[in-house]
Amino acid sequence: MSAKVIDGKALSRTIREKLAGLVEKLKQQHQITPGLAVVLVGDDPASEIYVRNKARQTVEVGMQSFEHKLLPTVSQKELLDLIARLNADPAVHGILVQLPLPGHISDKQVIESIAPAKDVDGFHPENVGRVASGEGGIVPCTPMGSMMLIRDALGDIAGMNAVVVGRSNIVGKPMAQLLLAQNCTVTVAHSRTRDIPALARTADILVAAVGRPEMIKGDWVKPGACVIDVGINRVLNVGGEGYRVVGDVDYREVAEVAACVTPVPGGVGPMTIACLLANTYLATLAIHGISSDATF
Amino acid sequence: MSAKVIDGKALSRTIREKLAGLVEKLKQQHQITPGLAVVLVGDDPASEIYVRNKARQTVEVGMQSFEHKLLPTVSQKELLDLIARLNADPAVHGILVQLPLPGHISDKQVIESIAPAKDVDGFHPENVGRVASGEGGIVPCTPMGSMMLIRDALGDIAGMNAVVVGRSNIVGKPMAQLLLAQNCTVTVAHSRTRDIPALARTADILVAAVGRPEMIKGDWVKPGACVIDVGINRVLNVGGEGYRVVGDVDYREVAEVAACVTPVPGGVGPMTIACLLANTYLATLAIHGISSDATF
Repeated sequence: MSAKVIDGKALSRTIREKLAGLVEKLKQQHQITPGLAVVLVGDDPASEIYVRNKARQTVEVGMQSFEHKLLPTVSQKELLDLIARLNADPAVHGILVQLPLPGHISDKQVIESIAPAKDVDGFHPENVGRVASGEGGIVPCTPMGSMMLIRDALGDIAGMNAVVVGRSNIVGKPMAQLLLAQNCTVTVAHSRTRDIPALARTADILVAAVGRPEMIKGDWVKPGACVIDVGINRVLNVGGEGYRVVGDVDYREVAEVAACVTPVPGGVGPMTIACLLANTYLATLAIHGISSDATF
Repeated sequence: MSAKVIDGKALSRTIREKLAGLVEKLKQQHQITPGLAVVLVGDDPASEIYVRNKARQTVEVGMQSFEHKLLPTVSQKELLDLIARLNADPAVHGILVQLPLPGHISDKQVIESIAPAKDVDGFHPENVGRVASGEGGIVPCTPMGSMMLIRDALGDIAGMNAVVVGRSNIVGKPMAQLLLAQNCTVTVAHSRTRDIPALARTADILVAAVGRPEMIKGDWVKPGACVIDVGINRVLNVGGEGYRVVGDVDYREVAEVAACVTPVPGGVGPMTIACLLANTYLATLAIHGISSDATF
């Protein structure tokens, strides 16, 4: 084991502490309290835990948390009506609809109904476009958190070769845009890529976002590379009793080769909620036209 | 000289002929004539020639052409008022504002004032976002035309290595998205890339969009690669008399190595206006909710 472990828990705590101070200042100077509305449809236990964690951390940094739990049978019209009310509600600065939604509701239509200024997930086409063009916009939380970990570990990354394995709209593609904006040479690899191991070995920064348990092996990694594992996969324990959570990276193998690597859990995961809160704070500033030099 | 010359003039003619037939059918079946409004601010001679060419070709495929020439002293408000009228005008299905605009007008604000449904340049953040996500949207004309040339020359390109040199918002970035959508493994290189020649030599498809005359040399190209030259650079003739137009590719050298290459002029250039007309036709269908299986 030679790699430095990139501690997402610690960095996310630092960000939340910084946010708590900024929120306090905002309340004192402008009498504004950022508010985050989270909408959960149905009763998936994993989503419920995630939503509860979000609400707790929202309150901990001094923001208001609004939870809306809807029955799995809710109609799309009822959901869109709720979002219209949240769009118009001055106490709400961020709106997050927990995905996926039940089959009778269109994720796309729901996402596009959220006011871009309050779309703290960064999934609305207008935000996707602004981020792609490097012209502002709200950055999706997972790539934003991954980039913070990379910058924290490596500092200036201009000129480095970055390989992103996976091309999802919520992680792979925006991750590539962010790395490009930091002047990396960026390659996006995916299931149709001919020789992913050889390509991965060219990476100074390797981001795994495919959702395949422990796919990235030690000999896929260039010695000294920085490896960011976005995967969160539940796998059956040997013997068949219970589950454990693993990433897309074979951590044991890769930690022998890489210079630094994120663990799962405790790497990118905790950063995601911290970035959601940071986005809610930044959305609050933008909605009220308050300028700030706060960066995350 | 071994490379096949990719003939953009011929393909653009084929597309315009196809469009003329589709427009005729649209008139007969739906009594709708697609209309394209082009707005030109100032009196730059190159822009005037370009706008005149657009108008001529628009009329040739049976569409209506609306030209708006504004004085270089026009205020931003006057320009935005004009765009608001064009947004509301049912005879106008596509709006193109010739860029760049005079310094006292914000390109960004003007682009964002165009109704996304009529933004046939594909520069509005909403269209940029949809194209980035692979969820519809209007594709910018130059990368769209480049992709048509690639598909016409190579057919299915899934799994091929594509390298895009240049990362502009109007060519490099959307080009990368389109190649990714066609299942290429895509790398974006730029001025901060460490060893562009070595990277370029890994490309099955090499797209040059940097705006540097004849930068891509023969030994930057893998034998058998397909090379697309987006550059249009005016360079002084040897001896200093007059100008000639060259691409970003050293055509003479590259044609010895590549399997196919676009010339400049006569490659990507003619495709751009054809794609503008195709986008106007597609925008007309979308605005009127007419479904069609027409592809370009």
